[in-house]
Amino acid sequence: MSSESKLKFGRDVISVEDARTRLYPHAAKMAIEYVPLTQAFGRRLAVDVYADHPVPHFRRSGVDGYAVRTADIRHAAPESPVSLEVIERIPSGTMPKLTVGAGQAARIMTGAPVPDGADCVVMLEMTDSLQDAGAGAVGGADAAGSGAGTNVSIKKNLPTGSNITPIAGEITAGELLLPRGSLLGPGEAAILATFGYSEVPVSRKPNVAIFSTGSELLNVADALAPGRIRNSNSYMLAAQVEAAGGVPHIWPALPDDANQVQEALKRALTAADLVITSGGVSVGDYDVLVEVFGQWDGRLLFNKVAMRPGTPTSAALWQDKLLLALSGNPGASYVGFELFAKPLLKAMLGCAEPCAQTVSAYLDADYGKASAYPRYVRGTMRIREGQLWVKPAGIDKSSVMVSIKDADCLIRLPAGGQGFQRGELVKIDLVHS
Amino acid sequence: MSSESKLKFGRDVISVEDARTRLYPHAAKMAIEYVPLTQAFGRRLAVDVYADHPVPHFRRSGVDGYAVRTADIRHAAPESPVSLEVIERIPSGTMPKLTVGAGQAARIMTGAPVPDGADCVVMLEMTDSLQDAGAGAVGGADAAGSGAGTNVSIKKNLPTGSNITPIAGEITAGELLLPRGSLLGPGEAAILATFGYSEVPVSRKPNVAIFSTGSELLNVADALAPGRIRNSNSYMLAAQVEAAGGVPHIWPALPDDANQVQEALKRALTAADLVITSGGVSVGDYDVLVEVFGQWDGRLLFNKVAMRPGTPTSAALWQDKLLLALSGNPGASYVGFELFAKPLLKAMLGCAEPCAQTVSAYLDADYGKASAYPRYVRGTMRIREGQLWVKPAGIDKSSVMVSIKDADCLIRLPAGGQGFQRGELVKIDLVHS
Repeated sequence: MSSESKLKFGRDVISVEDARTRLYPHAAKMAIEYVPLTQAFGRRLAVDVYADHPVPHFRRSGVDGYAVRTADIRHAAPESPVSLEVIERIPSGTMPKLTVGAGQAARIMTGAPVPDGADCVVMLEMTDSLQDAGAGAVGGADAAGSGAGTNVSIKKNLPTGSNITPIAGEITAGELLLPRGSLLGPGEAAILATFGYSEVPVSRKPNVAIFSTGSELLNVADALAPGRIRNSNSYMLAAQVEAAGGVPHIWPALPDDANQVQEALKRALTAADLVITSGGVSVGDYDVLVEVFGQWDGRLLFNKVAMRPGTPTSAALWQDKLLLALSGNPGASYVGFELFAKPLLKAMLGCAEPCAQTVSAYLDADYGKASAYPRYVRGTMRIREGQLWVKPAGIDKSSVMVSIKDADCLIRLPAGGQGFQRGELVKIDLVHS
Repeated sequence: MSSESKLKFGRDVISVEDARTRLYPHAAKMAIEYVPLTQAFGRRLAVDVYADHPVPHFRRSGVDGYAVRTADIRHAAPESPVSLEVIERIPSGTMPKLTVGAGQAARIMTGAPVPDGADCVVMLEMTDSLQDAGAGAVGGADAAGSGAGTNVSIKKNLPTGSNITPIAGEITAGELLLPRGSLLGPGEAAILATFGYSEVPVSRKPNVAIFSTGSELLNVADALAPGRIRNSNSYMLAAQVEAAGGVPHIWPALPDDANQVQEALKRALTAADLVITSGGVSVGDYDVLVEVFGQWDGRLLFNKVAMRPGTPTSAALWQDKLLLALSGNPGASYVGFELFAKPLLKAMLGCAEPCAQTVSAYLDADYGKASAYPRYVRGTMRIREGQLWVKPAGIDKSSVMVSIKDADCLIRLPAGGQGFQRGELVKIDLVHS
């Protein structure tokens, strides 16, 4: 058997998990770069972020009202209000100057520091500002009536600590807030702003070179020609790369000549952090990557994976750079990217658990096709009455491109058996996790 | 009652749904702009995209093998193979020159056009190339043995149409492929590439001006000071704006002076497509937006919504531009954005159904707090054995910022009642939908 025939027909098949295990050690960690916080959304954190101060760092009032001593209001009620002397008003951002003593209160705003002496804050709605009660003021709302030197009538008894967030009530100093690899969304942005990260250490985005193979491929701007199709895989993969946090670079489609292909791939492997190809890995006469791998002067990591679609998915190493060669059908390319390239990119960006989240769901349609290898069927989820149902997205054939947009998960159907019935629990990988 | 007091205490409360109904008519539709396909990922389509040709536009082979007439192979089997004359080889992208007649076959590659006369394609693995069988070739894999003028031995009977995708088998000409407002991801990119969209008509991104209020606010780069905190809401909202498809612009925090505030807001309303503020809408003495709305020379749409957190959420119109004033606590700002600003931005970008998807889930914790208004609790989902469970994300107090990052849904708890028990079915809004 020739070396090329061996590569086409004598391949050793390995599991998806084993294939990942062979890839991950070669996931190059990206360098740190600092970007302004407003440009960091959607990026991944390059370091662990710890709290350098507690939150709040002062006893914080949760409401607008009066800071008082609970001992003073123990018998307060609407029909027996307690009158207290207002000694100060404390806007947010202002430190109290005075200590609240017996029979005293301080007017305080939401978010302001609670003065010493006070151990609860009574909401404005449960108070009356005394001086202005006869002058038509509404509750404590009239600004003129709530300053120092006036009195306030408290109409409710509250327990100690009411409406006060203690120091470190939200976050303790030294606490791990965001682990390295965290995707920066709104909640993370709030934390980073709170802790002064005007510049954020994020991982550099991996540059990913994308190739398609196939002499049938036209450029997107080309007019349609008989027997030919426009190159859609490169753009689909580019969108997948971007969603996974990388920078896609679409290279010209690969020619049919093995030497030229090898040269183009090595140029890309030199320039990029990862190279992804689609097509050319199967058993056809024009599957040029098979020929290239037959004479590859780097390491071949695998060239057959126990999965459908995408059985001939291959990976090779050249000077520490990874080349991931996906099967060429649109569905196979899509699935291959999600199973191998996305976790790889997330690992390069520092994620500790880069694989998609796997959960179980009820199958919402019979699925007749048994398979010698585990199947990864593009699926669409639906939640009904607290139950998660999943069914194949549109027509599930690896060549079908139109239904890729409807996939939000991959249904993992084990090998063998007689197919699957509606209502069975199956495992699914969440594509957007 | 003074006008300001009325705005603080005499507000008319409306439902979340009514508030949305008052906002949507003022969602300005964004203009169309054309961007290269590789820059269109994550954008929203400004037009409906229809198929201008069928897919495939020729009878397409799904495998590498031989295109044959089923009538010729009706009795083919491993022990009684049928020998056919190979008249041509058809790489992908090449139109067949000959018609397959009785007793004939054409060598064909995956994705290539099936020649006239042939009505099925036999996979290479089920064939033997005859000439080279004695010379150690493996199956039909040897390139030299599969050209024209040779013979092929077919070892399997297949039904008509096998391994052929008919014209329009995936997509019919004239079919609606992607409606206006579609978010462009990998599947959409593949469709746009297939139909020649090298430039994509997308909606211009809405510019959103973001303000925070509060004299306690420091800039992110500032050192912490007693009683003061760094402005985190503006950055959280900026990340939410970006995730919703807008361009965030963080303006300097608003001062305490109502006239200056009004002036800054009008400058922003002139410059941006939407203005969002956080804070200053409540009953505190320093809630400056209440004062501003008291003298507003545009329309006030609402200033109290039956919801927790965020009851004082307000909205106003000025010269056809919307100003959305969110409650200032981090949790209230977050929820207010998700309930009002995100659907508004999606509507501006052409989405027909801009609201988050609402589904039902099982409550995974008791929730004791009853409420006079419906509650929108930031929740974290978990799928267990096909069931969707949800629980409040971390500490659910509107002032707590650290748990916002853990929210992937809003749990909608209706008003009244005695709280909610673990195991109850509740409605949730999916934040990422």
